[in-house]
Amino acid sequence: MKRIVLTLSYDGTDFCGWQVQPEKRTVQGTLERALSGLTGETVSVTGSGRTDSGVHAAAQVAHFDTRSAIPPERFAPALNAVLPADVSVLSSREGEEGFHARFSAKEKTYRYAAYLSPVELPLKNRYAVRVDPRTDVSRMAEAAEYLVGTHDFSCFLASNSSVKNTVRTVYESRVFRRGEDVFFVIRGNGFLYNMVRIAAGTLLRVGEGKIPPEAVKEVLGKKDRSLAGITMPPQGLTLLSVEYGSPAPGKEDENGGDPQKSP
Amino acid sequence: MKRIVLTLSYDGTDFCGWQVQPEKRTVQGTLERALSGLTGETVSVTGSGRTDSGVHAAAQVAHFDTRSAIPPERFAPALNAVLPADVSVLSSREGEEGFHARFSAKEKTYRYAAYLSPVELPLKNRYAVRVDPRTDVSRMAEAAEYLVGTHDFSCFLASNSSVKNTVRTVYESRVFRRGEDVFFVIRGNGFLYNMVRIAAGTLLRVGEGKIPPEAVKEVLGKKDRSLAGITMPPQGLTLLSVEYGSPAPGKEDENGGDPQKSP
Repeated sequence: MKRIVLTLSYDGTDFCGWQVQPEKRTVQGTLERALSGLTGETVSVTGSGRTDSGVHAAAQVAHFDTRSAIPPERFAPALNAVLPADVSVLSSREGEEGFHARFSAKEKTYRYAAYLSPVELPLKNRYAVRVDPRTDVSRMAEAAEYLVGTHDFSCFLASNSSVKNTVRTVYESRVFRRGEDVFFVIRGNGFLYNMVRIAAGTLLRVGEGKIPPEAVKEVLGKKDRSLAGITMPPQGLTLLSVEYGSPAPGKEDENGGDPQKSP
Repeated sequence: MKRIVLTLSYDGTDFCGWQVQPEKRTVQGTLERALSGLTGETVSVTGSGRTDSGVHAAAQVAHFDTRSAIPPERFAPALNAVLPADVSVLSSREGEEGFHARFSAKEKTYRYAAYLSPVELPLKNRYAVRVDPRTDVSRMAEAAEYLVGTHDFSCFLASNSSVKNTVRTVYESRVFRRGEDVFFVIRGNGFLYNMVRIAAGTLLRVGEGKIPPEAVKEVLGKKDRSLAGITMPPQGLTLLSVEYGSPAPGKEDENGGDPQKSP
């Protein structure tokens, strides 16, 4: 039995998220069907974490176990020959001893994308959301810095979640502008369900002048979801990468991976 | 009767191009139906030029005539309320005396987008085409410069075209790279049918080392379509803008507008 590690990219628009659901088109289900066809086995795929319906991935990581004689690095081209156009395997390799796509993950990086425009732009809407052109991006950038550090992020936890440990460490959190595009990039050791989308909604409230940048500190301190912003729509969110190397400097706990659904 | 000028953006993926065709979903047809609904008139829309099936527009320009009492600038929000998500009106205004979306156009700017990758990337494929990562972009940039000037572009004319005058002036032609993305931007007083897509295919041959950059000069001189590269796929092409101001410095003829289908 070999454990194969896949790095894959998908356009989440037409998937009902990562996780297999009966009668729904999901990334995990699409991969498992393709792998079962290739290997003749019943293959079960484990991702680094779930992503929600409509959320994209530039480089998601997943593993599966197989007795197939297909060389590990050949799975990528073999899968790409049969997978639909909205999911692509960037690489495949044999996993080192003890590798687990979810439990071995040390860091993840997400990006939330928006654009400043008075009207909806069809060429942007698939991967970003429109925000008012008067939005103050420099205030958002200031507010984003308050997210760095080890915090109880229950203020950014979807209200229907029952997760126990809501403490996570954020290593990087920044907002920047390129022309009319605005990006929020956040890197951490794990993310709560909807955490990035709610954080983005909270930063947007700052950009709209509804709360001052420092209010993000208070929102975090009060651990109250109702103080934070709305959950931003899924299409702006992309999982950029999952890191399995040595922990980043300053990492304090071993809560690697993300047992939750997509942030 | 008022002439209203629209600036609009569309994602060409699900349109069979600009021009009305029976039983097909086209941008012009979609606009005409929406305008007829708004005004109660039978409205006919004229674009600055056609774009082919699958070609996008960041800022296409079109006009129509109406007796409607709707104020010119209110057409944009009124149309956006009824148009599908893949076409959006950026602005509307009353046209100055004699304005014609096609015949008054002085310049157009197109962009052809590619990305360097060994595998297809689902998050890029909607608006760009994959090219081999070994492609030499600096050679393409060198070759692109040969397109600037007034030339007979019959070498870049689709073989099924019957256009008479194949001389056009290109003011700007450059290839540049941003990370894994490669862009070819070309601005001129008019473009032949498929001209930009064939020019992009010819530059790609240079980037692949199949012909030297200087060969583009020869291809132009010999006026022979068979010497040029392939017609690149439509999804990489975007009409960036149409200019109606005074002609650019160095413009030599008055061949404004583009009586042809999309370049």
